[in-house]
Amino acid sequence: MRDFDVIILGSGPGGLQAAVHAARGKAAVAVLGRMHKSSLFKAHVENYCCMDTTLSGREILEQGRTQAQKFGARFIDEDVLDLRRGEDGRFSIKLESGAVLTAWSLILAMGVSRNRLNVPGERDLLGKGVSYCVECDGNFFRNQVVVVAGNESAACSGALSLLLIAAEVHLIYTELSVSENLAFQVNSSPIHKHPGRKVKAIVGSMGVEKVVLDNGEEIEAAGVFIELGAKGALELATKLDVALDPETMQYIRANKKQETNVPGVYAAGDICGPPWQMAKAVGEGCVAGMEASGYARRMKTGKSGD
Amino acid sequence: MRDFDVIILGSGPGGLQAAVHAARGKAAVAVLGRMHKSSLFKAHVENYCCMDTTLSGREILEQGRTQAQKFGARFIDEDVLDLRRGEDGRFSIKLESGAVLTAWSLILAMGVSRNRLNVPGERDLLGKGVSYCVECDGNFFRNQVVVVAGNESAACSGALSLLLIAAEVHLIYTELSVSENLAFQVNSSPIHKHPGRKVKAIVGSMGVEKVVLDNGEEIEAAGVFIELGAKGALELATKLDVALDPETMQYIRANKKQETNVPGVYAAGDICGPPWQMAKAVGEGCVAGMEASGYARRMKTGKSGD
Repeated sequence: MRDFDVIILGSGPGGLQAAVHAARGKAAVAVLGRMHKSSLFKAHVENYCCMDTTLSGREILEQGRTQAQKFGARFIDEDVLDLRRGEDGRFSIKLESGAVLTAWSLILAMGVSRNRLNVPGERDLLGKGVSYCVECDGNFFRNQVVVVAGNESAACSGALSLLLIAAEVHLIYTELSVSENLAFQVNSSPIHKHPGRKVKAIVGSMGVEKVVLDNGEEIEAAGVFIELGAKGALELATKLDVALDPETMQYIRANKKQETNVPGVYAAGDICGPPWQMAKAVGEGCVAGMEASGYARRMKTGKSGD
Repeated sequence: MRDFDVIILGSGPGGLQAAVHAARGKAAVAVLGRMHKSSLFKAHVENYCCMDTTLSGREILEQGRTQAQKFGARFIDEDVLDLRRGEDGRFSIKLESGAVLTAWSLILAMGVSRNRLNVPGERDLLGKGVSYCVECDGNFFRNQVVVVAGNESAACSGALSLLLIAAEVHLIYTELSVSENLAFQVNSSPIHKHPGRKVKAIVGSMGVEKVVLDNGEEIEAAGVFIELGAKGALELATKLDVALDPETMQYIRANKKQETNVPGVYAAGDICGPPWQMAKAVGEGCVAGMEASGYARRMKTGKSGD
């Protein structure tokens, strides 16, 4: 099958929940993308309501996929190469394999890619002490030493909130680029500040053991938070003239119905901006799935009545 | 302890998720209300992303409660008698037992009570064929006979969407009170219409077997959807001058940060309006919990700096 009612770009929790609700709404649903690209894949989730907390991120995603498949959603493990809208209002989507799919409505749930340090150890220790989200993972480092890397407000406010949890917080930055008020809070706090420094390597075997700075200094730490901001998977969205949040220009602007400015295009999950939480993603996915299947139904009915 | 940072009214999924996120944000959190009052308590959930679908509603709620307690949230199984705000900006909450609690911020997550038919069988067969939500439970009645009771748009659009799932749909109403367009859709559909009729009783032992109308007619059916609209638990909210959604005047108006019009008062879940979905409730609870604990922190800091 190549013609769907609703196509969902992204198979993390936002996309999965959207698939469940769109498919329950009797829409023909396809979910595109590779599961291992979800930021949940290597994460440990302890704060999603009512979920068994012993499951790994991967197991959670697999469970959600099976569930969405039961309702009839079809999964296609391919990335999208191109995307456009035809004169009849239908979207056509070109996949890596060359196949072209169509849909009456789209849900953008591709998440965001966190900017990386690109240093040795960063990739291997992801989920073993390396994290891109203080809000999500800070709590795992109670009474331990943690390092935060970054120059902007996410890094500073992350470091401040870690003071309430960790035994010791180090902030590594070349130069702070934050409001005067936030800089004052950081400077008057017990955060260990390392101005003018960069992280050169993250070292550890089973988990993070230490962080090496560019001046050779070493910090023994159990956690490293890389807070360099996020880069939305937005190139595709801009092809459809989907508007971004005017404050950040990094995320897609969606209203409470998860509608973007483009009729028929919905968005859900991290791509709509923080907080980076599974609960928020599924809440938005639920609404997006229901709204997108309703939109597709109206378009089809309208067309068949022509 | 009687003085909290954040108090959450309601212990369904919205309240539980709010408790998890507020408590992770280092706030002192109390959750008020009785678990069995959540509409999830007797429900079967198959559409909440990534959750093991063999769990009962009760087990899900118990799992969520244990999880929130692990983060430090305290549960008090009492209803609220009275609620007001002091001159220092703190809320004080009087419980059934006479105890008075205080908090810097509140989250309203009391859900909505569905209007009932008040007929024999309705209460006993709840969750065994009787439902107050087509959107939530319609899918359980694939290729079976279902009855919908109600005069308004929720009943009519519910009956129409059940046509796609069920073998046969009966709509029981005294007089339709819907738009011309919706009335036309119902009248031109294969819905079995029973105008001028009321449900007199719902009969069954392990599950719904038949519905008896006030003219003595009997309909053999496996499912009965009671779609009489919802009555928010709003008396308390109005004491705080919390504004309602101007369209329905039934639900609390909250923005994307789950803020109401009253600073320090947040809302999450069914009380904010449909869709009546666990995923939506936890999404709103997540945001409300984070925002409310941030508000409480700012208020405390501001006060201590006086």
